[in-house]
Amino acid sequence: MNPILIKEIVKQALEEDLGIGDLTSDSIFKEDFNTNAVFRAKSSGVIAGLPIAVEVFQLLDPGINFTAFVTDGVVVSSGAEIAKVTGPIKSILAGERVALNFLQHLSGIATKTAGLVKLVEEFPVKVVDTRKTTPGLRILEKYAVLQGGGHNHRFNLADAVLIKDNHIKACGSILEAVKRAREGIPHTMKIEIEVENETQVKEALAAKVDIIMLDNMTPAQMAVMVRLINGRAIVEASGNIDESSIKAVSAAGVDIISSGAITHSVNALDISLDILI
Amino acid sequence: MNPILIKEIVKQALEEDLGIGDLTSDSIFKEDFNTNAVFRAKSSGVIAGLPIAVEVFQLLDPGINFTAFVTDGVVVSSGAEIAKVTGPIKSILAGERVALNFLQHLSGIATKTAGLVKLVEEFPVKVVDTRKTTPGLRILEKYAVLQGGGHNHRFNLADAVLIKDNHIKACGSILEAVKRAREGIPHTMKIEIEVENETQVKEALAAKVDIIMLDNMTPAQMAVMVRLINGRAIVEASGNIDESSIKAVSAAGVDIISSGAITHSVNALDISLDILI
Amino acid sequence: MNPILIKEIVKQALEEDLGIGDLTSDSIFKEDFNTNAVFRAKSSGVIAGLPIAVEVFQLLDPGINFTAFVTDGVVVSSGAEIAKVTGPIKSILAGERVALNFLQHLSGIATKTAGLVKLVEEFPVKVVDTRKTTPGLRILEKYAVLQGGGHNHRFNLADAVLIKDNHIKACGSILEAVKRAREGIPHTMKIEIEVENETQVKEALAAKVDIIMLDNMTPAQMAVMVRLINGRAIVEASGNIDESSIKAVSAAGVDIISSGAITHSVNALDISLDILI
Amino acid sequence: MNPILIKEIVKQALEEDLGIGDLTSDSIFKEDFNTNAVFRAKSSGVIAGLPIAVEVFQLLDPGINFTAFVTDGVVVSSGAEIAKVTGPIKSILAGERVALNFLQHLSGIATKTAGLVKLVEEFPVKVVDTRKTTPGLRILEKYAVLQGGGHNHRFNLADAVLIKDNHIKACGSILEAVKRAREGIPHTMKIEIEVENETQVKEALAAKVDIIMLDNMTPAQMAVMVRLINGRAIVEASGNIDESSIKAVSAAGVDIISSGAITHSVNALDISLDILI
Amino acid sequence: MNPILIKEIVKQALEEDLGIGDLTSDSIFKEDFNTNAVFRAKSSGVIAGLPIAVEVFQLLDPGINFTAFVTDGVVVSSGAEIAKVTGPIKSILAGERVALNFLQHLSGIATKTAGLVKLVEEFPVKVVDTRKTTPGLRILEKYAVLQGGGHNHRFNLADAVLIKDNHIKACGSILEAVKRAREGIPHTMKIEIEVENETQVKEALAAKVDIIMLDNMTPAQMAVMVRLINGRAIVEASGNIDESSIKAVSAAGVDIISSGAITHSVNALDISLDILI
Amino acid sequence: MNPILIKEIVKQALEEDLGIGDLTSDSIFKEDFNTNAVFRAKSSGVIAGLPIAVEVFQLLDPGINFTAFVTDGVVVSSGAEIAKVTGPIKSILAGERVALNFLQHLSGIATKTAGLVKLVEEFPVKVVDTRKTTPGLRILEKYAVLQGGGHNHRFNLADAVLIKDNHIKACGSILEAVKRAREGIPHTMKIEIEVENETQVKEALAAKVDIIMLDNMTPAQMAVMVRLINGRAIVEASGNIDESSIKAVSAAGVDIISSGAITHSVNALDISLDILI
Repeated sequence: MNPILIKEIVKQALEEDLGIGDLTSDSIFKEDFNTNAVFRAKSSGVIAGLPIAVEVFQLLDPGINFTAFVTDGVVVSSGAEIAKVTGPIKSILAGERVALNFLQHLSGIATKTAGLVKLVEEFPVKVVDTRKTTPGLRILEKYAVLQGGGHNHRFNLADAVLIKDNHIKACGSILEAVKRAREGIPHTMKIEIEVENETQVKEALAAKVDIIMLDNMTPAQMAVMVRLINGRAIVEASGNIDESSIKAVSAAGVDIISSGAITHSVNALDISLDILI
Repeated sequence: MNPILIKEIVKQALEEDLGIGDLTSDSIFKEDFNTNAVFRAKSSGVIAGLPIAVEVFQLLDPGINFTAFVTDGVVVSSGAEIAKVTGPIKSILAGERVALNFLQHLSGIATKTAGLVKLVEEFPVKVVDTRKTTPGLRILEKYAVLQGGGHNHRFNLADAVLIKDNHIKACGSILEAVKRAREGIPHTMKIEIEVENETQVKEALAAKVDIIMLDNMTPAQMAVMVRLINGRAIVEASGNIDESSIKAVSAAGVDIISSGAITHSVNALDISLDILI
Repeated sequence: MNPILIKEIVKQALEEDLGIGDLTSDSIFKEDFNTNAVFRAKSSGVIAGLPIAVEVFQLLDPGINFTAFVTDGVVVSSGAEIAKVTGPIKSILAGERVALNFLQHLSGIATKTAGLVKLVEEFPVKVVDTRKTTPGLRILEKYAVLQGGGHNHRFNLADAVLIKDNHIKACGSILEAVKRAREGIPHTMKIEIEVENETQVKEALAAKVDIIMLDNMTPAQMAVMVRLINGRAIVEASGNIDESSIKAVSAAGVDIISSGAITHSVNALDISLDILI
Repeated sequence: MNPILIKEIVKQALEEDLGIGDLTSDSIFKEDFNTNAVFRAKSSGVIAGLPIAVEVFQLLDPGINFTAFVTDGVVVSSGAEIAKVTGPIKSILAGERVALNFLQHLSGIATKTAGLVKLVEEFPVKVVDTRKTTPGLRILEKYAVLQGGGHNHRFNLADAVLIKDNHIKACGSILEAVKRAREGIPHTMKIEIEVENETQVKEALAAKVDIIMLDNMTPAQMAVMVRLINGRAIVEASGNIDESSIKAVSAAGVDIISSGAITHSVNALDISLDILI
Repeated sequence: MNPILIKEIVKQALEEDLGIGDLTSDSIFKEDFNTNAVFRAKSSGVIAGLPIAVEVFQLLDPGINFTAFVTDGVVVSSGAEIAKVTGPIKSILAGERVALNFLQHLSGIATKTAGLVKLVEEFPVKVVDTRKTTPGLRILEKYAVLQGGGHNHRFNLADAVLIKDNHIKACGSILEAVKRAREGIPHTMKIEIEVENETQVKEALAAKVDIIMLDNMTPAQMAVMVRLINGRAIVEASGNIDESSIKAVSAAGVDIISSGAITHSVNALDISLDILI
Repeated sequence: MNPILIKEIVKQALEEDLGIGDLTSDSIFKEDFNTNAVFRAKSSGVIAGLPIAVEVFQLLDPGINFTAFVTDGVVVSSGAEIAKVTGPIKSILAGERVALNFLQHLSGIATKTAGLVKLVEEFPVKVVDTRKTTPGLRILEKYAVLQGGGHNHRFNLADAVLIKDNHIKACGSILEAVKRAREGIPHTMKIEIEVENETQVKEALAAKVDIIMLDNMTPAQMAVMVRLINGRAIVEASGNIDESSIKAVSAAGVDIISSGAITHSVNALDISLDILI
């Protein structure tokens, strides 16, 4: 991850939560003093976001010491100690909620991803994310998906081509759409196309696209397409695939399953900061 | 909401999703042309975020026209048309995902909030949010809670005092903690205190705090505290209150129930943008 | 105070004063060398802003050492040494004016505030600021008011409700205005209302507002209102109260006196930086 | 003035005062409606800052119409109408305080400047400002000085050279200091030197500086120096010159009198916004 | 191109060139008045940057009208009129230099690119840029390369993998390096590898990379590699290829020739703005 | 140079080149490890930009150690080692291209400037830059000109007056234009005027301008003007003066020769970073 972007995101989160300052601490603590605090999981899951938590406290007060007991991507059980912070009580309290908000949200994503990945572990398939992320946090959420054992789809509209029905209609044909795309983009970039039926798959193959996305097909239809494509393109399955359907989709032989839900519909992992005063 | 903050948040979201630009559209559309597109709910829920969607398209292209068919806070059923955009196809496609990401996330929060509010509609209790929000989006998420019929807790560490156990320990007593806080803060600001037992409630009352937060008590314990407090402070219940427990907590007579889950563990409302080309 | 906001304000001030750099020093000093410099009061007053001065030099050059001889809020007499900086001459000269501009302005506010506070020390009244602050510096100016022994009013339009005549007119009555406000705002937030006569005071009491602001009344009228209110709301006096009138207003028994002049009409405290080369 | 800088300063001021939004208006006005409001002087003075007030409302709501009845630099008497705004009540109230804070502060500077200028109107002398301005507002404050009939000194450390005693000491002589400066700076830039006695004036003349600043001399000493310089350099008088001494200093024949007080020790001009609802 | 990024880049350029404002115009033009001005080529070349010039004037003054006579990518001869601006003289003069700086720099890149492209027009080869761009202007410079008939390489370190010798050494083998890369990146992303000899080409083919970059080989060596690769990967030639060598390299049969010089060593195209007053 | 501006420019350059991060390194290096790398000149020239390269690595990773073997302004021959960096391989690779882009561009400017300066070393003339710089990099490019032995012209529109034909036409005469300018600007600022013939030179002298720019005259004409001006103003020659004409122009006796080409038409100096792994 780009450390400069991370710092910027954390800085904005702190500005949002601190406003003009923590008036409770400012009025109550006559003098600052050092203390310890422990991040503890209150349910089991996959941890993600520790480097962000480090940055939260670092930005607030370089005098805070942060020691992680696990690394991102590790499964912890309920009650496990995740990390320890040592430093001035006012700085720890000022950063507590922001650090937890990042850690709980990202660990929630990693945990949800890991659940899907586990379901399909017997298949040679990758679970990937989408652009359906929380505005402003995409870099972090895609990082969390990796920690959960998933993989990433394209990061934004600028780093891969994804041709959809509107593009095809505007060009008249898949062949023409792919031709225009190929002409306009870097040779370092892949072309993916979203298809709905066998005819389109054949046209996509003729156009030599890199990736074919099968949109909203049944596992049975997908299996037919996979045989038809036969390794000539990466096959991605998409369209509200969830815990109930992901095994069947995987069994159809696709290479990639993309899921919006692993970033847009997530429960925060329950984590607390116990301050020892 | 502050229009200047909104514009800033939307601008950053667009920068994140567009990168150097939408290479697919840039290469495929030889010429831009006007089209229509319709935001449609694909499941039922409470809509929130339409003014944000407006801002997304406005920032990208002032030539886009946005017409909302409902207002934020309205319940829509699956299939309902929510809004229409008219304008250049490239600008509509460039803003599509960002607009949906905001709309789906905020409508998800409004819908989840409305669910809790509905459960306690027979009681004179308010459901409020917390500071457990997604970093960078607090202003929007708290707005979405309002659209779902909820209310807001304090916005950040600077606009109300919330005294917790660490503050009490550092001062030696609730009385001293409240005294220090009252001396240090504006007279326009309230003081809330988190208590765990009856002794603390009594001390809080003696200190004339404005709000007493009952943390992780059973409904039965809460009912005792409500009677003890007897209108001398606002009573807030907190601590993992969910769909299963919220009615019992409300029946205990508290004034306020705060829920972190309505912002940190939310399913996006399914909404699509159908482009008519 | 929020350290991240402070850093941002100081950074902008340095950009403003440095432009592309200090051309005088850059051309004249062939080699940089260490020196000492002393901040000295040239008239007596209350010091405020030392942490800001620290930040000025810290941002410019982490190699500068800053030692304060007093803390903010302390009264110094003319000639007193306030602080010492040690480090590279070019960095000290580059930060000199910005550090002084902050220190003189904030100490001017603290000094003016302390003057008013001194006048009413025999009364149980607080002198508070307003939103009539210098654009961009509110967080610092409100901090300076605290150093002068004053207290703060609300920080901005978002952290307390203040109902004025236009709001009342638009609602038809004080009761309705307060009801709407109470419904819309967090339970952690107070409601203040500005009143002009006894009838309005009675309506405000009936509406159970938290704070009643007596606007532009004579001390005699205020005394009547204070008796009428009788502890049922905090009483704030407002309206061009200055050195000549503040004792009489205090004697009327109000709890709070707000003054715009302590932030908008202030003489900088005379402070110099003596560089020992 | 640079319109892009102005917009940035105004944007920050609005963010500071609005926070997450104007909760009073948001909760009280069920529906927005158009109204008129009039800026009115409540004491006499020189107006400065109308374009800034325009920008405040423009940024908040392009639907607001702003009509100025005077232009900056004009003297108004108490009670005079300065400008009128028409538009949505919520937007007008949201911008009211920020617009007034700018207008009152800048008009205060223009008024104070005009007072000094008036005192020396019989002399061919210019009253100029210094770098002793409020951090973040220098561009506006220097503009206000112009509106009051004053002139500007250098804007920052990068647009003119000002050699002081420390620079001279570090170089060994005035001649050497000026030589180094001249070698290092653009040919488009002037060199000013601060001198304390006749010997230094002679050295400065020998070094052919553009401007000689007489620091903390008596009017009698200044008159001697003016005769000695005899038009070979611009003569600037500096050092706590105020209403009591400025005529005597002008009579000494200096070209320029610089005053820090016209920007750092100013009373806001009393201006109100009367909203007609 | 992303319109929001463009606006940001232009805004910064204007802040840089305007400082606190155009003092020459501000002092000389008592009143503003409308005028016309014409952008004219003073040597022949390919135009690029007109949308940027539009944005310059738009940001400064929405009252300026900009009419382009050609579009980006068009070849103009010396003397040709490129565009016309109509509007207030002060705004036109304030934007003149910034608009020209963008237009001349980007047209210089387009012109240099077009020269290389012309040299190889008989070959099925693409001339592409590199990351050797001017800091801060990459999005614009890559756009200018397209206008000159060139194509783009990857935009930054995040949108394609390019494995170099250091990466290979750290992994022990090309196979291992490619395997690790493929595991870590999105399936939408290509892998390119830089090779120096035939052994490495064979390993790269075995690893099934998408693109093989032949670094600093002679055209004869390249021809051998092209035959060896035989369509199994895109072949890119790199390494100080210039006007003297590009035909020979193309004749070797490579698909792509990358050139740093088309962005890092460019002569501005001579363009003037003739103001008709 | 202003260290705060430099940091901002470098930060933006890193954001541009890193995007969400260096995916190649992130996927390939299982573990980070320390290494050394050497900046080496691959052709001879004048080095400029080392402090910028330092800042690049400092911002990315404070654990990187940067040792310069030369200082800016020094001539190096092809093959010379310029600097060494030691630190984590991932951070070095992440900063490599940005550091080189700055260093090569600025050294290119210094080298081109030094070439012109060398040609006129026998004359008492200064070679200066213009405002024809790369948008966003002016402060750095003007610094590079100094390193090449050149001098700077005004930095932007706000730090000196330059009166051109349009200004003169709008005022009716040179005398009037200069009078208006002198009245409006600080006494610390110089006035330069661009003239085309002898009549204008005489008027400029009568108006006592500080600098007369001879625009597009032949060396012979310039020599006439220099004799006419006779030291009463600084004489600047301008207008596409290049290697072929600069000696003749210098011989005409002008004080200053300004060149746009030293910043707008420059070849990057060839520099590489050899990483020792």
